[in-house]
Amino acid sequence: MTSTLASLTECIAPELAAVDLLFNKELSSSVKCVNTLVKHVNRFRGKMLRPCLVLLTAKACGKLLPDHVTLATVVEMVHMATLVHDDVLDEAELRRKGATINHLKGNEAAVLLGDYLISHSYHLCSSLDSQFAARLIARTTNTVCEGELLQIDNRNNIDLDEETYFQIITRKTASLCATCCLLGARYAGASERIIHQLELFGLSLGIAFQIQDDILDIVGDESTVGKTLGIDIGKGKMTLPMIHFLRNAPQEHRSLLRSLLTAGEPDQLEKIRNLILPSPSIDYARNRARQLIEGARQSLQDLPESDAKRVLDTMAEFVISRPM
Amino acid sequence: MTSTLASLTECIAPELAAVDLLFNKELSSSVKCVNTLVKHVNRFRGKMLRPCLVLLTAKACGKLLPDHVTLATVVEMVHMATLVHDDVLDEAELRRKGATINHLKGNEAAVLLGDYLISHSYHLCSSLDSQFAARLIARTTNTVCEGELLQIDNRNNIDLDEETYFQIITRKTASLCATCCLLGARYAGASERIIHQLELFGLSLGIAFQIQDDILDIVGDESTVGKTLGIDIGKGKMTLPMIHFLRNAPQEHRSLLRSLLTAGEPDQLEKIRNLILPSPSIDYARNRARQLIEGARQSLQDLPESDAKRVLDTMAEFVISRPM
Repeated sequence: MTSTLASLTECIAPELAAVDLLFNKELSSSVKCVNTLVKHVNRFRGKMLRPCLVLLTAKACGKLLPDHVTLATVVEMVHMATLVHDDVLDEAELRRKGATINHLKGNEAAVLLGDYLISHSYHLCSSLDSQFAARLIARTTNTVCEGELLQIDNRNNIDLDEETYFQIITRKTASLCATCCLLGARYAGASERIIHQLELFGLSLGIAFQIQDDILDIVGDESTVGKTLGIDIGKGKMTLPMIHFLRNAPQEHRSLLRSLLTAGEPDQLEKIRNLILPSPSIDYARNRARQLIEGARQSLQDLPESDAKRVLDTMAEFVISRPM
Repeated sequence: MTSTLASLTECIAPELAAVDLLFNKELSSSVKCVNTLVKHVNRFRGKMLRPCLVLLTAKACGKLLPDHVTLATVVEMVHMATLVHDDVLDEAELRRKGATINHLKGNEAAVLLGDYLISHSYHLCSSLDSQFAARLIARTTNTVCEGELLQIDNRNNIDLDEETYFQIITRKTASLCATCCLLGARYAGASERIIHQLELFGLSLGIAFQIQDDILDIVGDESTVGKTLGIDIGKGKMTLPMIHFLRNAPQEHRSLLRSLLTAGEPDQLEKIRNLILPSPSIDYARNRARQLIEGARQSLQDLPESDAKRVLDTMAEFVISRPM
């Protein structure tokens, strides 16, 4: 995705470079060992989806300002903090083909490094003139935490329903994407209507993004995706294809999946994959993601034509076609 | 300490009650499982030292306002977040005589609950009119994280020097106490000189508080202190009495302590205790703490006489005489 996004986001290349600079400047510390650890975070920074959303929505609204670079850096830090803390959470063995903080340095360093990132994101955010962004971003991180806690609370809950599933992914993933777009539009001086439409764009795109992530966790190829797959299953996390399967597959298939999910055998993932892949449940999840992306693209229609608008549109499409 | 502080802080009792209310109101969630977890945090809330510092310094400066209640709640949330994350870090078995989050619910819930607390602290802080507090608190949490990371980096470093030890505890403990006092004074409209003196008061008090904590980790009685002792030693954390001992005790005692610290035997704590207790190293640490508290009390001298000033003075004394 990195290279595809890079070609897509040429129109905001200088601002993305400025985000990179500001990210490193804000995190640099007078304490040497902190810098060593922070350097390591940079190794697994990736697609910069969230900064792109801030910058592209701003540009699509006709006014990309220095404050947007600050905001884009803030949301990237928030996102990186959740990734670093997810490493504590998910015991992921690979992320972006690099070693994770927790395996290199232990859980404690991962917790603190995540805290350091989130602390600096608020510090940077409070350098802006108005409290608006700080309050909205804090509200968003409240929501993200709720989503993650709700997810943990439903671990190994084989009876998880779609409604709760959508509540979880909307909070933990989509809310930050929505906030990125809202901030991009608002700090560009867009109208309330446009701001609201772009917030919806981010929300739909974020939900679809997470569904696609969940699909890839089952059907993806580890070397392409660049992180350990089957993590969701291993951690008792129910995803949309499985939820659908457990309600719609023939009775004996459902029973088989239930027993595979509870047994926790070593080749569990392979068996689950073989069971779900030929069923309509993957396509069901794909269709849900597609509908969301169609809605997202419609939310763009009131924007004037521009490069940035076209890139947002292409990005939406890319979210559900990406192999990683 | 709770009951002693309670009698000391009668003059700010209504504001402390307001802090409690606001704390619970801010953290309440529409997600049920989040509330269950938050309720658990309340079980191990303790002495409210940091809110007391905000409120008492404000009152001592002659102007205790509603914003101070907000600020006091914010710093309590920040402190609780570090306690919850410390549980992930320190594998503490007891804290304030209650079960810790991580043993009840696992490390992942502890990480997220800490994140939830820190997120809400910023959310609440961004409800204030000015960015001043938000920026200062974020800068302080940056510093706290650096202190904790520096501490981890020096784990099992038997050669840790005093200078680095003081850098660690100043950052991880004293910086937040200093910020509490600074905010109390500043939001009360105090002069720059008084603000600075009270910041110093908080800084000295915080450093002394941590030294006392470190002393108690060696000499304290577990049932009085209410948390597992000897944690520092078990986690390879060097404290002031040990640092002093390793530089000043007779050569053969130093060698014995070094071998005890590296061997990690089951009765290590008992042996270390028996070695250090009769030495002058505990008194050395006590004297350092006492000097700091004397400095702190001198920082109060320009304040007009008041109940609040007297309580701050008594609190400073109490920090180094407390049994817990």
